[in-house]
Amino acid sequence: MAQIKEITVSELDTKEFIARKQAEISKIVGKGIAINALSGGVDSSAVTMLGHGALGERLKTYFIDNGIMREGEPAQIVSIFKKLGVNVQIVEAQDEFFSALKGITDPEEKREAITQTFYKKVFGKLVKESQAKYLLQGTILTDIDETVAGIKRQHNVFEQLGINPQEAFGYKIIEPLVELRKDGVRKLAEALGLPRAIFNRMPFPGPALSARVIGEATRERIALVRKATAIVEEELASVKAFQYMAILHNDRVTGMRDNKREFGQQIEIRCWDSIDARQGQPTELPFNILKKLAGRIVEEVPGVVSVTYNIASKPPSTMEAI
Amino acid sequence: MAQIKEITVSELDTKEFIARKQAEISKIVGKGIAINALSGGVDSSAVTMLGHGALGERLKTYFIDNGIMREGEPAQIVSIFKKLGVNVQIVEAQDEFFSALKGITDPEEKREAITQTFYKKVFGKLVKESQAKYLLQGTILTDIDETVAGIKRQHNVFEQLGINPQEAFGYKIIEPLVELRKDGVRKLAEALGLPRAIFNRMPFPGPALSARVIGEATRERIALVRKATAIVEEELASVKAFQYMAILHNDRVTGMRDNKREFGQQIEIRCWDSIDARQGQPTELPFNILKKLAGRIVEEVPGVVSVTYNIASKPPSTMEAI
Repeated sequence: MAQIKEITVSELDTKEFIARKQAEISKIVGKGIAINALSGGVDSSAVTMLGHGALGERLKTYFIDNGIMREGEPAQIVSIFKKLGVNVQIVEAQDEFFSALKGITDPEEKREAITQTFYKKVFGKLVKESQAKYLLQGTILTDIDETVAGIKRQHNVFEQLGINPQEAFGYKIIEPLVELRKDGVRKLAEALGLPRAIFNRMPFPGPALSARVIGEATRERIALVRKATAIVEEELASVKAFQYMAILHNDRVTGMRDNKREFGQQIEIRCWDSIDARQGQPTELPFNILKKLAGRIVEEVPGVVSVTYNIASKPPSTMEAI
Repeated sequence: MAQIKEITVSELDTKEFIARKQAEISKIVGKGIAINALSGGVDSSAVTMLGHGALGERLKTYFIDNGIMREGEPAQIVSIFKKLGVNVQIVEAQDEFFSALKGITDPEEKREAITQTFYKKVFGKLVKESQAKYLLQGTILTDIDETVAGIKRQHNVFEQLGINPQEAFGYKIIEPLVELRKDGVRKLAEALGLPRAIFNRMPFPGPALSARVIGEATRERIALVRKATAIVEEELASVKAFQYMAILHNDRVTGMRDNKREFGQQIEIRCWDSIDARQGQPTELPFNILKKLAGRIVEEVPGVVSVTYNIASKPPSTMEAI
């Protein structure tokens, strides 16, 4: 595979790009069946629309419910695509992910457990069962900048899927977005008819809410941070910020409820001003908003007695906590 | 011992109180020797001045350097008293306290380790070696509100000091402040000639900086929170607030230095508006102050990549974190 030639956002002619990619996909897949996993992020959403345009019902799109999504997210994504005429099948896989996450506190191991569960246990199985030989993936240029491009990387994908390289001979991975970066994909997604909630979606990490829990990501702790996340997203919806989030800490802090000491939990809120995620500043939220956020969180999220707001800049901070 | 009759701050006639208490102390101690431990808090400072006025050099005052005080605190306290003609002896006991704190992460166990080390290992030994039979203590009415007053409590003090109740027959504990509450002691301390830094001193917990470290209070971690505390106290010195503090978390968060990921530390800042410590609100510090604080802390405190500001109210939060 040759060096990939970037198409910048200003160079991108979405109409031409869509027609060309759909023709490519049609040509490769022919009368066959293709499969893809939709996360609701802009990349996998754009790929789903491109693939559906090319293959119609011969593209099987799955949404893996890993149990670490935000409140109502699986249903919301499915409903958005249904309105666009795309049938997405939800795959219930919460147990698989929570067993894989059990006892893990190290952030890297957590990420690895989620990746392995996704590829080997859940999606790999779907691929094999579906008998589809074509996989559509939302890889973008930024994803492969630091990895080895071409055959070698695709070998890795097969390995991740638990598919033997010998068997893999029959499989083909299609990555229609590899020439684009995030801003190009957003422009493409809009042109593909996806709603603003998708094409302008706030960055959200691959390991989802498990990246918003310091320490072990149990079902209970994910439920707490999910609730706090919903409050933060609701209260800050009208704030112009690059990204905002709630993080559940592992450290316990003292609180007081009904005149009794309670060794409770703490939620940290982060809200970033940023152009390109390389540098970031805490958004100067008015104190009445900060106090309202804190008040709602200690009232509505069980066991939380303390709330903080991050005031450091990136660098040396990063946007996400783990 | 009969029920203690409170003297409210408005009832307190400091001149009369000082004369009466000094006469009482003189009468009890006679030609003997008394001993007391000075922490630099307003209670023990007032007792030191009262006792010194009554007994002069026959009161031996010790400042126990437990290694968990703030930057420059031991020297500063000794110098304040030197200016007032009172000779305070610093007792170097850092090793004793840090060995006692080793491996302890539970807040209650931490507190207990400090209390036991103070009484049994350090001050108890000083009492016995000094051959003083009279102990001056800065107990105030609030301290005994929830404990059993009188003989029984004094027995506890002897037990804490590791002094056998039989031996204790010869010992006497003198508590000149038991009729007062904190506001009364502040008024008294001012009348005794103590400087504003003492009589108006911001509340500071008994377990000192070990209460500002979540998790194990090692020498290294105390050094980090000491540095952050100095920055917070310097930057907020002119802010009208009830209390402010820096807290070192145990949770690690991701940061980035010299383009490398760094699993770093987080400091939480709290600054409280409050009348009487029963309820509290986060002080609405301007963002330029918050950003300056965060900037200095990530730059000057090694390994810290993230800083938060507490935005919850008391209750359900408490003022201190542990």
